[in-house]
Amino acid sequence: MPMDKIKIIEVKESVFAKNELAADNLRAELNGKGTLLINVMASPGAGKTTLLKATIKALKDEMKIAVLEADIDSDVDAYRIQEAGAESVQLHTGGMCHLTAEMTRQGLEGFGDKHYDLIFLENVGNLVCPAEFDTGAQINVMLLSTPEGDDKPLKYPLMFQVSKAMVVTKCDVMDLFDFRLDAATKAAKMRNPDIKVMPVSAKTGEGLDAWFDYLRAEVARVKKA
Amino acid sequence: MPMDKIKIIEVKESVFAKNELAADNLRAELNGKGTLLINVMASPGAGKTTLLKATIKALKDEMKIAVLEADIDSDVDAYRIQEAGAESVQLHTGGMCHLTAEMTRQGLEGFGDKHYDLIFLENVGNLVCPAEFDTGAQINVMLLSTPEGDDKPLKYPLMFQVSKAMVVTKCDVMDLFDFRLDAATKAAKMRNPDIKVMPVSAKTGEGLDAWFDYLRAEVARVKKA
Repeated sequence: MPMDKIKIIEVKESVFAKNELAADNLRAELNGKGTLLINVMASPGAGKTTLLKATIKALKDEMKIAVLEADIDSDVDAYRIQEAGAESVQLHTGGMCHLTAEMTRQGLEGFGDKHYDLIFLENVGNLVCPAEFDTGAQINVMLLSTPEGDDKPLKYPLMFQVSKAMVVTKCDVMDLFDFRLDAATKAAKMRNPDIKVMPVSAKTGEGLDAWFDYLRAEVARVKKA
Repeated sequence: MPMDKIKIIEVKESVFAKNELAADNLRAELNGKGTLLINVMASPGAGKTTLLKATIKALKDEMKIAVLEADIDSDVDAYRIQEAGAESVQLHTGGMCHLTAEMTRQGLEGFGDKHYDLIFLENVGNLVCPAEFDTGAQINVMLLSTPEGDDKPLKYPLMFQVSKAMVVTKCDVMDLFDFRLDAATKAAKMRNPDIKVMPVSAKTGEGLDAWFDYLRAEVARVKKA
């Protein structure tokens, strides 16, 4: 390349709280109860709530599902989830960009003593901060929507590194946005070689069965443990 | 609505640094030099770099433009900017989700003593944290891409409140995503009644002239001051 070398300046600062212990404790409790908590992370508008609605509709007769909605200051998603037929609690972060394990615990207390097989934690729409804080969930799942582009694993490495699965949403418009599934998969696996990649479209239904099967297997695993 | 009232739990914590003074100082310096610094914010994949490339190509013969690229850990955007014909410095945030005025100053020092009429600061892709920190830029501009949905001003209020302009990107696919420009505009104006809304498509060129004229006027204003 005939271009000049780019000047790179490193700026480091630490704002990461130590919440690993709280997260481990919460995880142990959830395992004890046989409840799977999945921390769902993505950019704003990647389709988290839409995927969760489709999931609730498909699985609500075979397992007890609830959703803990985290938002800075609105409750539109909690109502959308309730319309789909699952219980939901809205967690307001008061401007915070992420959830800690303690915030997650406070949110879960909103469900009282009821038992759930599967609880989704819909994290704040953000590819950076939520990845830095262990919420206490047994599994992190991230959604990457095809309009965002296939280069995101290069730019938000930690999100892909900490996620057990990457659900590629809005697959029906993949071609329109020149989104290369193979390139995205390769880049994500550079961050986490074991990441499971599931392309879906909540609009057309494509790929949803694989996602549902994934959830069934993970729920069964927590129950058996 | 026959639904149960959603349970809402407020969780507050403060991680916001006091950097207003540093920002005011940087802004005063920039005004003194006749350089307009625009802080460009958006979700990941909203099209920040693509819009900047189109802008550089269109305006580079009438004004001196540079771009300060902020990324967590990559430099792909800085190279894309350089290919478009503007100087760029890559700022690595080391995992940080936002830029402070001090980080911005360190980045600007990378350009040395050269004079620029217009410098874009491409902030980290994130609708939450960057809005909380004054970078010292004279103007904040946010990009909302149509695939993200028209409800984003409801969910990320501060971003819309602190932005002087909202550029609605990927307008060529607005209909495909049921994006209602009037709804997005109305919601954004609830946060900031004076926000200027500019729909564009870097792909088709639609709306770009209005964006360029906006930049010309703002650059002229800083020069005159």
